[in-house]
Amino acid sequence: MSSSYYPGLENVIASETAISYLDVEKEEIVVRGYDLIELAQNVTYLDVAGLLLEGSLPDADERNKLEERIKWEYGLPQNICSILRLLPKKTDLMDVLRTGISALASYDEELEDRSKEANTRKAIRLLAKVPQLLANGYQAITEQAFVEPRDDLSYTANFLYMITGQVPSKMEETIFDQSLIVYSEHEMPNSTFAARVIASTQSDLYGALTGAVASLKGNLHGGANEAVMEMLLEAGSDEGLETLMLSKLARKERIMGFGHRVYMKKADPRALLMKDALDALALEKNRSDLYTMCVVGEELMKREKNLHPNLDYYAAPVYYLLGIPIDLFTPVFLAARTIGVSSHVMEQHAHNRLFRPRVHYTGPRNLHP
Amino acid sequence: MSSSYYPGLENVIASETAISYLDVEKEEIVVRGYDLIELAQNVTYLDVAGLLLEGSLPDADERNKLEERIKWEYGLPQNICSILRLLPKKTDLMDVLRTGISALASYDEELEDRSKEANTRKAIRLLAKVPQLLANGYQAITEQAFVEPRDDLSYTANFLYMITGQVPSKMEETIFDQSLIVYSEHEMPNSTFAARVIASTQSDLYGALTGAVASLKGNLHGGANEAVMEMLLEAGSDEGLETLMLSKLARKERIMGFGHRVYMKKADPRALLMKDALDALALEKNRSDLYTMCVVGEELMKREKNLHPNLDYYAAPVYYLLGIPIDLFTPVFLAARTIGVSSHVMEQHAHNRLFRPRVHYTGPRNLHP
Ligand SMILES: CC(C)(COP(=O)(O)OP(=O)(O)OC[C@H]1O[C@@H](n2cnc3c(N)ncnc32)[C@H](O)[C@@H]1OP(=O)(O)O)[C@@H](O)C(=O)NCCC(=O)NCCS
Ligand SMILES: CC(C)(COP(=O)(O)OP(=O)(O)OC[C@H]1O[C@@H](n2cnc3c(N)ncnc32)[C@H](O)[C@@H]1OP(=O)(O)O)[C@@H](O)C(=O)NCCC(=O)NCCS
Repeated sequence: MSSSYYPGLENVIASETAISYLDVEKEEIVVRGYDLIELAQNVTYLDVAGLLLEGSLPDADERNKLEERIKWEYGLPQNICSILRLLPKKTDLMDVLRTGISALASYDEELEDRSKEANTRKAIRLLAKVPQLLANGYQAITEQAFVEPRDDLSYTANFLYMITGQVPSKMEETIFDQSLIVYSEHEMPNSTFAARVIASTQSDLYGALTGAVASLKGNLHGGANEAVMEMLLEAGSDEGLETLMLSKLARKERIMGFGHRVYMKKADPRALLMKDALDALALEKNRSDLYTMCVVGEELMKREKNLHPNLDYYAAPVYYLLGIPIDLFTPVFLAARTIGVSSHVMEQHAHNRLFRPRVHYTGPRNLHP
Repeated sequence: MSSSYYPGLENVIASETAISYLDVEKEEIVVRGYDLIELAQNVTYLDVAGLLLEGSLPDADERNKLEERIKWEYGLPQNICSILRLLPKKTDLMDVLRTGISALASYDEELEDRSKEANTRKAIRLLAKVPQLLANGYQAITEQAFVEPRDDLSYTANFLYMITGQVPSKMEETIFDQSLIVYSEHEMPNSTFAARVIASTQSDLYGALTGAVASLKGNLHGGANEAVMEMLLEAGSDEGLETLMLSKLARKERIMGFGHRVYMKKADPRALLMKDALDALALEKNRSDLYTMCVVGEELMKREKNLHPNLDYYAAPVYYLLGIPIDLFTPVFLAARTIGVSSHVMEQHAHNRLFRPRVHYTGPRNLHP
């Protein structure tokens, strides 16, 4: 047995992968050979989805075909809508999504087929249905009418439309699309790891994704973007934020939206992109105060803890200004990440080895009943 | 970064734990200091549940209190029953259980409390409700009336009663109880690992358990017990089984119920216990042919591949003779393991470090959109 023990498997190689890699030295998030930030600046979320699924960027024709296939899969079974309505009104939206995805599994005729082709089709179905599941889930919990998908809108505009009930402006659509790209894939975070662990028993894609939803809910992971927004709203002003952050630090609490296991002492390139997006969006919406406040918080954390903001820190106020309810911030992250997780599950199924580690036992021995 | 890579994290230490340990040298499954097989021979499943939760074997008084608390938590919310009825009739029972546990989460008032005390109460609620969820889930899918729990029966007798609709004999109850004990906890199998990975984001117990259900469904893990029974039924006789196994081996297929990551070349002590149980039960039910057939299969695998049966190989025919529908074999495993997984989630929450490993990137570099 390997004698060293790294809590949290820090720096332990868990998988080989051709999907993505955080090159901390070069400060590059490599996704199938491309720099994720360059992708966000030059292509759309569906291009990145195609890239993740197929291994190469789709050309215009392939991209249109992918969009058509997704739109063809729009819509939820009636019973799924009924299940959403049956959940208690106080249900966390991540729990709604987890139940919804879990229940959706048995509507997929190819559930038990683990071939690349069938898994690709399932991933496309999930791309089509997860945004609606979270939008309609939210509408169920808040007792509003369901907004149905509109296939005259782009994938990204429709996603935002289903949540807010309003067709977004071109600028809103572009910024939301960029956020989906930067959330789409990020090497081996906890949720992707959970999904690969589950898939390694030969379990199916929906089950693996259910585990990823459960993981992403935690506030050390996806849950951070909602906590960031609560903090910003509670703070209310630059001074308010400074006071709040300092008092949290004095109590040795973690400040959500800062720090990262992999690039703890370097900037998260995704955060920088979303910072620029926030700057532009805040100007447009006359909320430059929100941008300034975030910068104040960023500077304070640099000064006090030498910690950098992660993606969630700047994605949170961006989503807020896009009109997304706070309870949906983590579900939107999950929806964007669905394609990344699906690609990892496909890779796991294609080159499988059961995950089954060992332990250091620290309990008693030789007791008898 | 640690340079070595162990596919499937084979022999890698993923956690410290005081819960259990497979001592392969001594052929002992250590559970909180006790030998699991000794526990199965001397105490009941609820004693082991108390041991797992609290760290020491309950005395008679504590055990009765635990049983009372569990019985007090019997019953499912009406909406959960409605959700079970809404699932497609072809839904895999593990998927029913996954959706049911996921949906049950928001009925737990203490869902977001990660203290030891609250987690213990949640684990007790799950002990009470998971058996009913799988029984009623099965009844929903097969369009039968729901069997309600009976608190005049022991926990174990009631579990079997809810599935079969019949009060078990004393012998059936004892054997089922032993099977629950040997399924209750087993160090760091894939499902427990998945649950700990998920819980390490600070996500909740129900979410972590949902991930464990997804993992256990896979046929390299819990799904094996159902596959074993299908094989035995397909074979039909000693010669049939030999022919079937040899043809599978010739096609380089895996034979379900054999082999184990940790004790690959040694016997699984749990399998031996269930083998004895099968011998006794088969005699009682005039099905000694089934026992003999299993022994023939065991000997063939020893001869051909030097592989030993694992727990699932002998638990499968035991469950069959207990009148449990095959589709419920893996769900019963999950129900029994719920207490082990819960204990691991509690330990993870109490001594947390986020699981976040790294990868070996094998894809291209330096592409530009
Ligand atoms: C992401 C995160 C879990 C990574 O944690 P990790 O790799 O386990 O890092 P550690 O817990 O070892 O932290 C290292 C040090 O930085 C401190 N630190 C890390 N993140 C911090 C934060 N957000 N606020 C305050 N201090 C923080 C830790 O307290 C620790 O300090 P110490 O050595 O004095 O105890 C952690 O940074 C965090 O909790 N961030 C907030 C949640 C968040 O934004 N998550 C989204 C990630 S995309
Ligand atoms: C449990 C299991 C996944 C452990 O697998 P692992 O640690 O990944 O083991 P490996 O895949 O490295 O197997 C080692 C060798 O034994 C063989 N082997 C292992 N289990 C086998 C089985 N059930 N039938 C036939 N051959 C088997 C493998 O083919 C391999 O042979 P090779 O070296 O000639 O290729 C594996 O034994 C298995 O698939 N068993 C059947 C499923 C089952 O019963 N699961 C329940 C476990 S409690």
